[in-house]
Amino acid sequence: MAEKSGEYKGKATMEKITSLAKRRGFVFQSSEIYGGQGGAWDYGPLGVALKNRIQAAWWKEMTQLQDDVVGLDAAILMHPRVWEASGHVENFTDPLVDCKKCNARFREDMIPPENIETRKCPECGGELTATRKFNLMFKTHIGAAEDSASVVYLRPETAQGIYVNYKNIIQSNRMKIPFGIAQAGKAFRNEIVTKNFIFRTCEFEQLEMQFFVKPGSDEKWFDEWRARRWAYYEKLGVLMDSLRWHRHGADELAHYAKDAYDIEYLFPMGWRELEGVHNRSDFDLKRHAEFSGKDMQYIDQDAGNERYIPYIIETSAGLTRALLMLLCDAYDEEKVADKGNEDDWRTVMRFHPNVAPITVAVLPLMKKDGLAELAENLRADLREDFSTDYDQSGAIGRRYRRQDEAGTPFCVTVDYQTKEDGTVTLRLRDSMEQTRVPTAGLAARLRDEIKAYKRAESGKV
Amino acid sequence: MAEKSGEYKGKATMEKITSLAKRRGFVFQSSEIYGGQGGAWDYGPLGVALKNRIQAAWWKEMTQLQDDVVGLDAAILMHPRVWEASGHVENFTDPLVDCKKCNARFREDMIPPENIETRKCPECGGELTATRKFNLMFKTHIGAAEDSASVVYLRPETAQGIYVNYKNIIQSNRMKIPFGIAQAGKAFRNEIVTKNFIFRTCEFEQLEMQFFVKPGSDEKWFDEWRARRWAYYEKLGVLMDSLRWHRHGADELAHYAKDAYDIEYLFPMGWRELEGVHNRSDFDLKRHAEFSGKDMQYIDQDAGNERYIPYIIETSAGLTRALLMLLCDAYDEEKVADKGNEDDWRTVMRFHPNVAPITVAVLPLMKKDGLAELAENLRADLREDFSTDYDQSGAIGRRYRRQDEAGTPFCVTVDYQTKEDGTVTLRLRDSMEQTRVPTAGLAARLRDEIKAYKRAESGKV
Repeated sequence: MAEKSGEYKGKATMEKITSLAKRRGFVFQSSEIYGGQGGAWDYGPLGVALKNRIQAAWWKEMTQLQDDVVGLDAAILMHPRVWEASGHVENFTDPLVDCKKCNARFREDMIPPENIETRKCPECGGELTATRKFNLMFKTHIGAAEDSASVVYLRPETAQGIYVNYKNIIQSNRMKIPFGIAQAGKAFRNEIVTKNFIFRTCEFEQLEMQFFVKPGSDEKWFDEWRARRWAYYEKLGVLMDSLRWHRHGADELAHYAKDAYDIEYLFPMGWRELEGVHNRSDFDLKRHAEFSGKDMQYIDQDAGNERYIPYIIETSAGLTRALLMLLCDAYDEEKVADKGNEDDWRTVMRFHPNVAPITVAVLPLMKKDGLAELAENLRADLREDFSTDYDQSGAIGRRYRRQDEAGTPFCVTVDYQTKEDGTVTLRLRDSMEQTRVPTAGLAARLRDEIKAYKRAESGKV
Repeated sequence: MAEKSGEYKGKATMEKITSLAKRRGFVFQSSEIYGGQGGAWDYGPLGVALKNRIQAAWWKEMTQLQDDVVGLDAAILMHPRVWEASGHVENFTDPLVDCKKCNARFREDMIPPENIETRKCPECGGELTATRKFNLMFKTHIGAAEDSASVVYLRPETAQGIYVNYKNIIQSNRMKIPFGIAQAGKAFRNEIVTKNFIFRTCEFEQLEMQFFVKPGSDEKWFDEWRARRWAYYEKLGVLMDSLRWHRHGADELAHYAKDAYDIEYLFPMGWRELEGVHNRSDFDLKRHAEFSGKDMQYIDQDAGNERYIPYIIETSAGLTRALLMLLCDAYDEEKVADKGNEDDWRTVMRFHPNVAPITVAVLPLMKKDGLAELAENLRADLREDFSTDYDQSGAIGRRYRRQDEAGTPFCVTVDYQTKEDGTVTLRLRDSMEQTRVPTAGLAARLRDEIKAYKRAESGKV
């Protein structure tokens, strides 16, 4: 199958996304008042809501809706032997060189090959040091002594927490192969080059699932999980034209991988990896058996106590990367002739209602004449079931624009007619269509709208 | 008001809880196959479900259901100046002494005063070193050079992430005082003494809310938040006899605190802090103004642009500590005469259905005669809305016992009558009452049962 190609034709740019993210409280620079902390970002009110909803959608999909996948939350601080077994202590390194003259530091693979040959600095022409391996794991010390015995690492990936618990989970939850373990959590990498906003950062969140299968059935399950993960993005409301599969060539395959596919998304800066689906073979459990001295074989009681080391199919996605993807995917600008609007253009974030940070905003047309109280009461009725906002300041058109930019799929406006007949205006974000609906049954109507939601706009490729 | 006293009269012991937690997959020792990593724990399938539900309940209560509280998720790696401003670099220390003879290490305040006077080791009588301050923050280096300029700390509390973002959030979300910012996340402390299972650990999760108020209104808001936080535990289904307020005496108050109350829970090991409600005055924002050089004043546009540094009311709870509390609170053993049971005693976890890891288990009476298929289909119908389990192995009484121990409030049994009339047996965990109900409408019935749920048992004090 030929790989999909295509150039980005959407309206987002990384500058627009970064600016909107800060202006509306999706993402702030970490420790900004102190000049910022590189490689780390803080998620504001809209950002944390969006992030929580993506994580909840993934978690539900991967545990609650699957027959044989259970959850886990392993600690960030693991025993240091884990990272010897995994190969990270030895191999999780970047090749670094320094300029002896101007002290600039480079990743060897990021500078032109001729500079490596001549050992001359690409910036000042000075002499380069020999290349050294720089390990990307953050190291700290636990206990009161700073000796090597007490070194611990911040985990650079969540997967190992699953492997070391695989026997515990089989035992406590009576799991039978095939089964999976899902985990969402932070990981840390001392990346020398962080870039593209929240795309590559030192602190990030992974959404990983490891599926344990009998050797020989691994290719079937690999295909099965590729299909399931593709379907997941469709459910999330992503423009599917902007997604593609990229199969790892022999030169890209990790040492543990028998086969690997990435799901790539067409960001404004080009096609980039969102998620990997990997056939990790029996590499990980064999290594942990070797380093821990524990038996990692599965005993199949339904097949005469047959013993084997399972193969592992991994699906590994980045949560904050998925958030960036949704910001880019949802972003739209359009010329409109909206009733009550103040200018001809709007920025609208077309989030699926299931992940939108705010589901419904309640707006009184005026503050006076008891409309504000009516609207506040209506919000109070809705808030148990929905994420709500309330806004009473400024012209109604301006308030719709604010909600469009936050990606709120539904606005409910309380006006004078509401006092007479109990109806409100339901305004849909995407079509800007306005309908008169009774407040009684409004929650049910919103639920129906959410279920029936279809992304209207299509094609950024 | 006199402080509530009372001794623990419940049936849990820390040994029973630890053992059940491991056996059923609530909590495992971290990196157990490598001998364990002290001060860190892994949450298994039931544990992560319980933890996620506690966190979701707190988050909903503190953001979705509050008028003026928004969420935030700040990075763990913050700018090092943050911890100078907060006072942690200087003051977040334990006093440590070592024995020169046997090399044992002690916290000075944990050994008998006479040993400090004589400087003799309480274990071997050897000479003790001078007392030194040991900072509890984990330290690491960011970037490729290990110089002091690149030191970063793992945050020892989540609160500072809120303070440094307070201006950003006012701006992006147009907040007006009084308002609050809620955050759930990990924090790390290099505790020399970790104990009581997951009660005190090096890696833990906080549920914090900082509420910004006008000076002078702080005492009113302090009382208000104490009332709201107390009500929250009632909603969580905790036995309220086991909770009490403890007001900090002058000797206990932190340097920043004007007033402070703890909510304490009666654990098997005695009354221990669950959550603190603190009036932090204007200490934090003043310090950040001083260290960052940024203006931290709030400008009240509704009051002639009056300027002031807000006071902060903090509610600070431990998520993993709340989980331990619920494990202890829910734990019960009782003599029963249950139809189909195998012995006279059962262990039952009386979790509120809103936080129970599994809401409903579907059990076919037999695997054969199509009952397993019927039960699997019923589970498929329920799983979109509920956390479900399916179990077909062993006698039905034994399967009920397993669900009791996991704290599953509802079991639904599919039997031969189901094939005839579409009804199933709904079995309630607490009363063990069994009722025949139609499968049509089962989801609505379960929702009603959850809403009407009342904890039957009372009193562990």
